[in-house]
Amino acid sequence: MSTLSGSTNGMTYAPTGKPQPVCQPGEFVFAAMALDHGHIYGQTNGLREAGGICKWVYDSDPARVANFLTKYPEAKAARSEAEILGDPEVKLVAAAAVPNLRAALGIRVMQAGKDYFTDKTPMTTLDHVAQARAAAAATGRKYMVYYSERLHVESAIFAGDLVQQGAIGKVINVIGTGPHRLGTGRPNWFFNKEQYGGILCDIGSHQIEQFLHYTGATDARVVAAQVGNFANQATPELEDFGDANLVGDNGATHYFRVDWLTSPGLRSWGDGRLFLLGTEGHIELRKYIDITTDNGGDQLLLVNKDGEQRIPCAGKVGFPFFGRLIRDCLDRTETAMTQAHAFKAAELCIKAQMAAVRVSR
Amino acid sequence: MSTLSGSTNGMTYAPTGKPQPVCQPGEFVFAAMALDHGHIYGQTNGLREAGGICKWVYDSDPARVANFLTKYPEAKAARSEAEILGDPEVKLVAAAAVPNLRAALGIRVMQAGKDYFTDKTPMTTLDHVAQARAAAAATGRKYMVYYSERLHVESAIFAGDLVQQGAIGKVINVIGTGPHRLGTGRPNWFFNKEQYGGILCDIGSHQIEQFLHYTGATDARVVAAQVGNFANQATPELEDFGDANLVGDNGATHYFRVDWLTSPGLRSWGDGRLFLLGTEGHIELRKYIDITTDNGGDQLLLVNKDGEQRIPCAGKVGFPFFGRLIRDCLDRTETAMTQAHAFKAAELCIKAQMAAVRVSR
Repeated sequence: MSTLSGSTNGMTYAPTGKPQPVCQPGEFVFAAMALDHGHIYGQTNGLREAGGICKWVYDSDPARVANFLTKYPEAKAARSEAEILGDPEVKLVAAAAVPNLRAALGIRVMQAGKDYFTDKTPMTTLDHVAQARAAAAATGRKYMVYYSERLHVESAIFAGDLVQQGAIGKVINVIGTGPHRLGTGRPNWFFNKEQYGGILCDIGSHQIEQFLHYTGATDARVVAAQVGNFANQATPELEDFGDANLVGDNGATHYFRVDWLTSPGLRSWGDGRLFLLGTEGHIELRKYIDITTDNGGDQLLLVNKDGEQRIPCAGKVGFPFFGRLIRDCLDRTETAMTQAHAFKAAELCIKAQMAAVRVSR
Repeated sequence: MSTLSGSTNGMTYAPTGKPQPVCQPGEFVFAAMALDHGHIYGQTNGLREAGGICKWVYDSDPARVANFLTKYPEAKAARSEAEILGDPEVKLVAAAAVPNLRAALGIRVMQAGKDYFTDKTPMTTLDHVAQARAAAAATGRKYMVYYSERLHVESAIFAGDLVQQGAIGKVINVIGTGPHRLGTGRPNWFFNKEQYGGILCDIGSHQIEQFLHYTGATDARVVAAQVGNFANQATPELEDFGDANLVGDNGATHYFRVDWLTSPGLRSWGDGRLFLLGTEGHIELRKYIDITTDNGGDQLLLVNKDGEQRIPCAGKVGFPFFGRLIRDCLDRTETAMTQAHAFKAAELCIKAQMAAVRVSR
């Protein structure tokens, strides 16, 4: 985990210490299934780097299984979901199903006595939220979510450390932009709103999770939300733009904008940014690229009483979420992310989606 | 005015051509009065650089008049407002009164047959808007506004040129941040909400004016707004934070955040930014500082099909508004800014202020 140095001169803040494996080999066995979204590779990488062993993989599409096995040859292809759910050695199932199927899968996983680690967005309806909450409570299992745009971004992790240590005072406003490249080769479900859940529910979930995390809000009201399809008339159910304004239960405010409009001229898939305004300073993240420079991504810019500081975070912070998640599963703690937080972010992104007014021009 | 070069290789866009004086010496005579806000110097500078002659200055405070005369010795101290309003040679009155007095002054100026050029925010109530609209219509005079965070920022001017020339397609979203340093020595009216109008009405007016300008919206709905005092309990009527979300009549959306929380560690009075999302690219402005670098302010970053480009605009674009305003006054045209636009931005910032929910934490 990253820590602040104690000095108070100009260049004060630097991340130190990357996470290490948190368990003995073989102590934490997991499986991967429902490989519908490529995020399953990020989920698997994170768990493996923190000491987890991927024992099984299952998907109804053998080609996806074969591809997974080329990357993780230690895994075995399961014959069915049931084979994984019936294996008492498996402690957690990582999955990246089609979004509107994620809740049902998670409930089956938890009812089989295992923790669940799903790609975001973790669900697409308020019914899903209620059912998943009930199942988690009934089974005592975890329904954890791969909110990758924070959990798998070193600058985003370090920003959380800085906030926690008071580097910018109380965080009163969060602005996030999550532009994404549409590209080619997206599956059919990507363009079907019932299946992907709408843009605010889908990639908006990263944003709301960030807001809750950085401000410490435990709930929020969606005060405005908009969605539109501005540049993709051929796929009318794709929302290529969405934005929303929220007010947290602690008075902090949030705005985010997400889109599928990244220009072909950008060297990255998206110019994702995060702006934290505190009562005593501000932080900006240039997550994936620092446009027009060769700085690389993961640039954290901090302005506070100590001056202006640029802290390149790539390779210096690591991704402590995964090790904490493994420990949480083994120890039945909540150090990586509370269950309440994971569900609240899911609930709010669905509420934003439901509240959204359609715009066009 | 800035123009695009015709080439289509990587570094395509560069501003060329600064405005020159637009009239003969003595052809455009103006006066300055109501020096309550220091913006009067920016207003006066802009008009003088474009060829205007500042003949008179008036303020009830002789010290402010004396200070003005040290900067512009060609001006004469008038004995009263009436002396200026009665001078047929004066074509325009520039003023920076206490905000809630700006409308009444402007109406007197227009009724005296002169155009009015006020500091933003141009008024603080919807009654003011109605009265000023009626007076402008009745007199045929102009009620123009110094929305300085666009009009007096070269990168902001060049962004408008790029948008107009289609560099990023249709602009569908505008995010603006307008942090300001509170500092010391602010006058009493600055802390009295009736007088300054509230933060969304005051410095929020810059933001909404930008939104209308860059998107071409002629009207908008305020869909959410918040204000708060997070760090200045000793001056409870000061709103040190505000944000708002708007939807334009053309479907474009807008979010802005303004505050008086600039950290002492920032080398500038504010890290003002503007983000324009288009259907074919995006533009970012780092208006006053490019934090952690020595690039200076007025950095325009453009991402579109031609790649990523950084265009330093300082000293290269100039401020065409002022010359156009002078020509508009002489020729009775609307090339600098339409009256409808100036009033609509004023109306919307007041509506945002009226809609604002108070937040605290």
